[in-house]
Amino acid sequence: MQQFDSVRALRWTGQALELLDQRRLPHERVYLACASAQEVAVAIRDMVVRGAPAIGVAAAYGVVLAAQQMPDVESVRLEIQKLAESRPTAVNLFWALQRMGKVLDAGGDAVRLEREALAIEAEDIAANRRMGELGAALIEPGLAVLTHCNTGSLATAGFGTALGVIRSAYAQQRITQVFADETRPWLQGARLTAWELQQDGIPVTLQCEGAAASLLRTGQVGWVIVGADRITANGDTANKIGTYGLAILARHHGVKFMVVAPTTTFDLSLAHGGLIPIETRPMEEVTSLGGRVIAPEGVAAWNPSFDVTPADLIDAIVTERGVIVKPTTEAVRMLLA
Amino acid sequence: MQQFDSVRALRWTGQALELLDQRRLPHERVYLACASAQEVAVAIRDMVVRGAPAIGVAAAYGVVLAAQQMPDVESVRLEIQKLAESRPTAVNLFWALQRMGKVLDAGGDAVRLEREALAIEAEDIAANRRMGELGAALIEPGLAVLTHCNTGSLATAGFGTALGVIRSAYAQQRITQVFADETRPWLQGARLTAWELQQDGIPVTLQCEGAAASLLRTGQVGWVIVGADRITANGDTANKIGTYGLAILARHHGVKFMVVAPTTTFDLSLAHGGLIPIETRPMEEVTSLGGRVIAPEGVAAWNPSFDVTPADLIDAIVTERGVIVKPTTEAVRMLLA
Repeated sequence: MQQFDSVRALRWTGQALELLDQRRLPHERVYLACASAQEVAVAIRDMVVRGAPAIGVAAAYGVVLAAQQMPDVESVRLEIQKLAESRPTAVNLFWALQRMGKVLDAGGDAVRLEREALAIEAEDIAANRRMGELGAALIEPGLAVLTHCNTGSLATAGFGTALGVIRSAYAQQRITQVFADETRPWLQGARLTAWELQQDGIPVTLQCEGAAASLLRTGQVGWVIVGADRITANGDTANKIGTYGLAILARHHGVKFMVVAPTTTFDLSLAHGGLIPIETRPMEEVTSLGGRVIAPEGVAAWNPSFDVTPADLIDAIVTERGVIVKPTTEAVRMLLA
Repeated sequence: MQQFDSVRALRWTGQALELLDQRRLPHERVYLACASAQEVAVAIRDMVVRGAPAIGVAAAYGVVLAAQQMPDVESVRLEIQKLAESRPTAVNLFWALQRMGKVLDAGGDAVRLEREALAIEAEDIAANRRMGELGAALIEPGLAVLTHCNTGSLATAGFGTALGVIRSAYAQQRITQVFADETRPWLQGARLTAWELQQDGIPVTLQCEGAAASLLRTGQVGWVIVGADRITANGDTANKIGTYGLAILARHHGVKFMVVAPTTTFDLSLAHGGLIPIETRPMEEVTSLGGRVIAPEGVAAWNPSFDVTPADLIDAIVTERGVIVKPTTEAVRMLLA
């Protein structure tokens, strides 16, 4: 079966991590070579690479670069610390760095660390394909889906989480087409999701966030399908700003709401979503767009990058280990046991 | 009491209608002179002037220009017809043209028509001030408000509908500050509402539409306050795309939802909102921004300009004739009787 998956955001050369510069998509397709852990950290912070799983994979390769270049284990540990500070909300970042740190602690050298990073990348793609199958199986054929932000090949090692489900469902002819929120302020939907689906020949229609309620009211959409940056012990889910509102709108219209994320996205140390640190990014991301100022000078803006969708608004969380229908603390615990 | 009202979108010179070009705000403050009815129609279609009441006033002056320049009544009637075709959703446009048409039918000349247009303009400002007082009286002091699109001095003859209530409430120290949705695709919130409130010294914080649910969850906001382009016999309300979703989010969080519109916005010929024609504008408004393309070439976009909020999600409709609390067909009928 055709996989509808031709894009890659990360390329490891052995000496450098090449990142498709997502700030320049869809107009330019340029890979930026990161030759050190510090360059990887800056690329993550500046959103050259974004998407929770992709950030985790990028950080793992950052550790490999540190191990190749640093004289001692302590220096590598310091680089791991700096990588961990590059973005605060996505937990996959910390998970990948912990996993690399364990190999380092066990005496692993650069070669062993490289093997671990390659494994993290390969496992992410495999997990995405598995989630794609599990998620697609939930979808009654015949309707469109709505997605938010970018959760595809660009946001992962490949194939995607929510877009992986959409790829699988489209390949199985379960969905007719994809509606994509443009996802202000960073326009990941307009710039990345639309581009990525277009590359793979999957029909996509863009809309502004404000049109979502009207779309759901038409009855054209069976599922809203999104990714996640962190999921707490009770199933509360942090994802790109706008997701929580979409979950409320879906419930209001009787449209199902699916979260797709690898188990590495769970943070069982947090009982509920109110405890997730939410990154607030610069006002300029709201008051300007692609370097062009769109608001009067000096006006204030509020720019939280993420929001938290409570578990009771989520119909299914799809992971590579299985599906949680109507998530609860008990169901999450059982899945991860 | 300070009125916090210093901006005007329309200036009638006696020979021309000067329109503050809202496409160029907030960067440039340029008035565009319309010397004929046709130029006024083009300005309305191209959104030099927008906002339901402002469009009505502009169209009325367009009729005056036609009467000054046209040889016969039939030619003026043709210009009225063309003005009516400039935007489909806002009913104030048709109301103002009907009122001008009646004067014309009664044998009114250009001087008489000019007097009528001046009256329409003056009545709009007076209605806005009255709505400001009535709406502000509903607001328990101490919280912020959220607004959508632009409903202020720029969208009316002056003072504003929803922003008129906000101006009055701020003057009475009932509200602490204003949150404004940026309002994609046309960014009326970022470009116009933020600018207009800044001009008048009213504290305003911008946000992307996607942040609205998170804001309402914080409990900082007491009311969502919006304008209207058309209100049907049962209280269903057409307004800028994004309004309907905001009403659902407000209800979900126990935040009150207020519609502010002059009685000229009611269309009793329509029983409910499903009958309102909804303008769909070009895809390019979504796929680009200020002339800058933000999506991959050839991608489809859905761009409805308005949506319909059902009456049962509206806590109060504020008009210059009084307030309808929990609108119903009966209550609307009584107010307009």
